[in-house]
Amino acid sequence: MTDLFGGAELGGTKCILAVAENPINTIKRIEIPTETPRKTLKNIFDFFSNYKLNGIGIGTFGPIILDRQSRDYGLLISDSKKGWKGTNMFAEFKSNFDAMINIDTDVNAAAIGEYNYGAGRACSTLVYITIGTGIGGGVLINGKPHTGSFHLEMGHMQVPNPDNFQGICRIHGDCWEGIASGPSIEVRCGVPSSELPESHKAWKKEAELLASGLVSIIANHSPDKIILGGGVMKQKHLYQKIHSKINELWNGFTPLGIISDLIVEPELGSDSGIIGALILGQSDP
Amino acid sequence: MTDLFGGAELGGTKCILAVAENPINTIKRIEIPTETPRKTLKNIFDFFSNYKLNGIGIGTFGPIILDRQSRDYGLLISDSKKGWKGTNMFAEFKSNFDAMINIDTDVNAAAIGEYNYGAGRACSTLVYITIGTGIGGGVLINGKPHTGSFHLEMGHMQVPNPDNFQGICRIHGDCWEGIASGPSIEVRCGVPSSELPESHKAWKKEAELLASGLVSIIANHSPDKIILGGGVMKQKHLYQKIHSKINELWNGFTPLGIISDLIVEPELGSDSGIIGALILGQSDP
Repeated sequence: MTDLFGGAELGGTKCILAVAENPINTIKRIEIPTETPRKTLKNIFDFFSNYKLNGIGIGTFGPIILDRQSRDYGLLISDSKKGWKGTNMFAEFKSNFDAMINIDTDVNAAAIGEYNYGAGRACSTLVYITIGTGIGGGVLINGKPHTGSFHLEMGHMQVPNPDNFQGICRIHGDCWEGIASGPSIEVRCGVPSSELPESHKAWKKEAELLASGLVSIIANHSPDKIILGGGVMKQKHLYQKIHSKINELWNGFTPLGIISDLIVEPELGSDSGIIGALILGQSDP
Repeated sequence: MTDLFGGAELGGTKCILAVAENPINTIKRIEIPTETPRKTLKNIFDFFSNYKLNGIGIGTFGPIILDRQSRDYGLLISDSKKGWKGTNMFAEFKSNFDAMINIDTDVNAAAIGEYNYGAGRACSTLVYITIGTGIGGGVLINGKPHTGSFHLEMGHMQVPNPDNFQGICRIHGDCWEGIASGPSIEVRCGVPSSELPESHKAWKKEAELLASGLVSIIANHSPDKIILGGGVMKQKHLYQKIHSKINELWNGFTPLGIISDLIVEPELGSDSGIIGALILGQSDP
């Protein structure tokens, strides 16, 4: 019998669950809505209990304690996703499965997916940013997550806010996520961003706000590649607008190479995270 | 005879040169003004030529090519310090000394100094920021510089600029360095910052601008410690103002611990950089 392992990507809206023999060859994959922890975890455990798994990798929203030495490893410490504060992912999974459990942030998982099988191959310094319900970022240095003492929260940078838009971040108001995430576009324009035509001026503004955050990321990491994923980036025309604005802002200060090679789409589409979670599921922590 | 090595810290205003048997036990140390490359390098070489050195470590202003595989290793690629663009530090030193030459940014050198002998001991993720003529930052992960594909340029982040001050950065105008470096305070107030009393409102503003950049650094690195050096930080009252503002901006989102333990003074005072350069001088690249 082949060794099986599981992957779970926990997002603010939905969870993707998969079982596989190897990360890009899944045997079964489902999506479930993210509801209360009790209901969602029950659904997750019901799914995985159909299999004999050697390991489960989890890429999850945070903020979450990732220090394996901590007795609170796996604990969600904030209500960033309402109702989930105080849930300990590690304890929950560990009490249900006799398997190795390996947890990282959703964005680190996506970065790991793209590093191994996607647009981030061979990038010594790789950044993955998701721009959707929120903004989050993960950084891999030679394939290993740069988590620092807690973990990164790149969506919560302070960025220029030329219109003094109050922003929608419940914690910080007008941080990067507060003024440039998907919901912030809707609040600014009064209609969901998916309904805005490509020619709408909101996209120029959005590209400018994203570019200024990305310039700060370049200043902080000097990456080989920045992969932009998440729902907002399904607007493909944004890439070109972002490229132009970054070149304008950075102004040739240090070499960025060809900007369209630096700032790219995920090659794995919306599977970066689940593939990364599956890789975590087969990794020794 | 004991092994000797040299260290050179090249700053925008002055250079510190030292010869030592070990990094904190210097035999000779001098300071010279930073003038044209020709004049400055001649003075540096004259000083070092009095000794038989096994290695020389250099911490320098940039932007500079740090990729040892590049044929341009050591090349200054911008006129960030006027007149120095096109100078190749490695080639210059190598043609004058039969010694190992090891180059890094001034801020990485300072971070290395503090990591080994100062406030950064045992910090897995250490950030050193200098706030003076410019703003620069270096990050060490387990003691090794995080340089990315080029090197970091943290002073050139995009940060909130609530007054729409045009800024003084020659490349970017109102980047972090453009609105929060020492000279920017002077332009804003009309008098050198060293002449402003502690009660002057410019310091509150300065602390706010520094805090918003530091929040972005926290979001990007989740550091164990951030050491703030440079001329502006000789205003000791700034630390407390920065601490308060960071706590206010971050708003408890992820644990920062005791803020006065996170954001600290350099223990090596203004010697962080030269001690780091000496460590580079005895390191195998």
